[in-house]
Amino acid sequence: MVKSLAVERAGSSAIRDLLEITERPGIVSLAGGLPNPATFPTDAIARATAAALAEDPVGALQYGPTEGYRPLRRWVAARTGLPDQGGEEQVLITSGSQQALELLTRALVDPGGLVALADPAYVGALQAFRAAGVELAPIPSDADGLRVDVLADHIAQGARPRLVYVVANFDNPSGSTLSAERRIALAQLADRHGFWIVDDDPYGDLRWNGRAPVALRDLTDRTITLGSTSKVLAPGLRIGWAIAPADVHRSMAILKQSADLHTSSLTQQVVHRTLAEPGFLDAHLALLRRTYQHQATHLVGALRTRLGDRLTVAEPDGGMFLWAELLAPDADTAALLRPAVEHGVAFVPGAAFGVEDLHPRCLRLSYATAGTAGLDLAVDRLVGVLPKP
Amino acid sequence: MVKSLAVERAGSSAIRDLLEITERPGIVSLAGGLPNPATFPTDAIARATAAALAEDPVGALQYGPTEGYRPLRRWVAARTGLPDQGGEEQVLITSGSQQALELLTRALVDPGGLVALADPAYVGALQAFRAAGVELAPIPSDADGLRVDVLADHIAQGARPRLVYVVANFDNPSGSTLSAERRIALAQLADRHGFWIVDDDPYGDLRWNGRAPVALRDLTDRTITLGSTSKVLAPGLRIGWAIAPADVHRSMAILKQSADLHTSSLTQQVVHRTLAEPGFLDAHLALLRRTYQHQATHLVGALRTRLGDRLTVAEPDGGMFLWAELLAPDADTAALLRPAVEHGVAFVPGAAFGVEDLHPRCLRLSYATAGTAGLDLAVDRLVGVLPKP
Repeated sequence: MVKSLAVERAGSSAIRDLLEITERPGIVSLAGGLPNPATFPTDAIARATAAALAEDPVGALQYGPTEGYRPLRRWVAARTGLPDQGGEEQVLITSGSQQALELLTRALVDPGGLVALADPAYVGALQAFRAAGVELAPIPSDADGLRVDVLADHIAQGARPRLVYVVANFDNPSGSTLSAERRIALAQLADRHGFWIVDDDPYGDLRWNGRAPVALRDLTDRTITLGSTSKVLAPGLRIGWAIAPADVHRSMAILKQSADLHTSSLTQQVVHRTLAEPGFLDAHLALLRRTYQHQATHLVGALRTRLGDRLTVAEPDGGMFLWAELLAPDADTAALLRPAVEHGVAFVPGAAFGVEDLHPRCLRLSYATAGTAGLDLAVDRLVGVLPKP
Repeated sequence: MVKSLAVERAGSSAIRDLLEITERPGIVSLAGGLPNPATFPTDAIARATAAALAEDPVGALQYGPTEGYRPLRRWVAARTGLPDQGGEEQVLITSGSQQALELLTRALVDPGGLVALADPAYVGALQAFRAAGVELAPIPSDADGLRVDVLADHIAQGARPRLVYVVANFDNPSGSTLSAERRIALAQLADRHGFWIVDDDPYGDLRWNGRAPVALRDLTDRTITLGSTSKVLAPGLRIGWAIAPADVHRSMAILKQSADLHTSSLTQQVVHRTLAEPGFLDAHLALLRRTYQHQATHLVGALRTRLGDRLTVAEPDGGMFLWAELLAPDADTAALLRPAVEHGVAFVPGAAFGVEDLHPRCLRLSYATAGTAGLDLAVDRLVGVLPKP
């Protein structure tokens, strides 16, 4: 038999199977977590690449340090508000934040150790945790994010998580943002009980309404923040990072060295040069926020108009996802996916994000990838598929 | 405590510490495994990058399949002589061959499982194996590579390796090439006892003399071949691959998905376009072979002329490394590294590659990075450091 324990634990390849569906011709997919390719800053990336290869070809093409390209680490530190002196020492550049998640799991949690997280949860996190053989403690969540009071109850009853995983800003899949009160309560729990908070934050920059609550890292040193350029520049560059205290940083770097030595020198330079171009990032974020707000408003409007009697959905302030709930009491979105695909539309059923609960009446809809015409077509097709209560 | 089992197993960060030494100003380093940056095909890479971003910006910047960019997989399959129909299904693109090594270890060997390999062995392989918590069975090697007869004896005495790791062409660090007779014997052992052979082959294309013995994958289906563009194009691109049977391939892909989703779409396209440019690869390989042969001949000559009474070294037919042995019976190259660095020269002591044996009289010298003037300076400085017998 070929399957090792690690492969068995990693289990089904839900993300890949879903991405395969979205690639079928003729499908309008609200399933993927793919940014709208019309927003890719191709010209800026082309300029940055040409400059890197012209001005620093050896730096862009030779082996580099495991911890990452120092100017990029410095940029991340400054952007995050870390101290000018030595702040970048906390930054580890990774091959997408998915790698950061896997490294920190293996660095911090032995097989059998406990990880608490919201149910529903991000599929990539579930895969990384399962591949590492950790135990999962699913915690319910609501419009204000993870139910920190339920987590506190678990701990009071003896649960001892090594880490608590949250997507505090515009959660994937639920779209919720963890409230300031809950952030404070979670940070206090972490300080009291000595667990690590992993704040996976790919969407925080995609806020078009309101202000972000206080960052978890500003509330406790027991926070590891993950960042990514996948939603802000382009995912194909595969550049993310972890911001972590020195001892966690070092443990992650040791594992990264055996995982892939270091992340591409070329793409690190390209990302740094693109982000550091004066004026670029503010203008580009404004474009992204405008685009996604427009698409989100459009999709929510179409869903409420055409399907308001069949589902409920909240209006988002940012991010890429809607988490819709069907009103039919016996609806099963996992069973509805096949007929939906036959009707030429795709979504992700709640079950894909389930830790314990299968969320049978829920589905995740991304408004990011398709333009408004595609969103309208998707809703047209959903009308033929989703059940009435 | 922050250290998990995985971090403890991964242990010291020998490669990183060594790379740090090589970065000190004024040091002539024969320590790193860095290609000569003067050989980097910067213009071809710049052309390929500009073309990728102009002709297929979405393909270069969007999320891609975990298994890799299909045109690159096809190119690897054709180059390797895999069948035209479906050969690329065996190819998994990875973030350098280091990642392939780690993924296959986790895919094939549970913690506590047995991996056999030559002693001395490649440091990156040792780290990946140790991080995975496998047991190592060190096998002595000589000028013809791994002593397959000793491996056979171990197996006859009850050892049951899950995999046997070899760098069959121009081994790192020993420089040896596994003889045809031993390849045949190893393949027969694999077929009989059902272990996997991992043939890590970053240096096979750097042969300037003689012909390569038959490839292990042509002798048994129980071979997983690892390839890399690090030594042929540039390491900073971080593109490698595994060629593996379907079930191993699938297990590795499942683990890769949780490890980093997929390798950079941009660098995969850049590598494919560079390699597929008509005439490029043959001309570039000719340049690399000429350069490294010239540098190898120069270093061997200087060592024999200036230090022939203190060490022995074999003339290589390819690759990047010399494995030198000091004649002083009580020499300790690990202890000599510090004075060497103080004299402005660096090498890798045998102990860094040791599995059981510390190879105290051995050192690895790379002729790849420095030009001939640098090599002369390095030998000058070694004269002041290496002991007489």
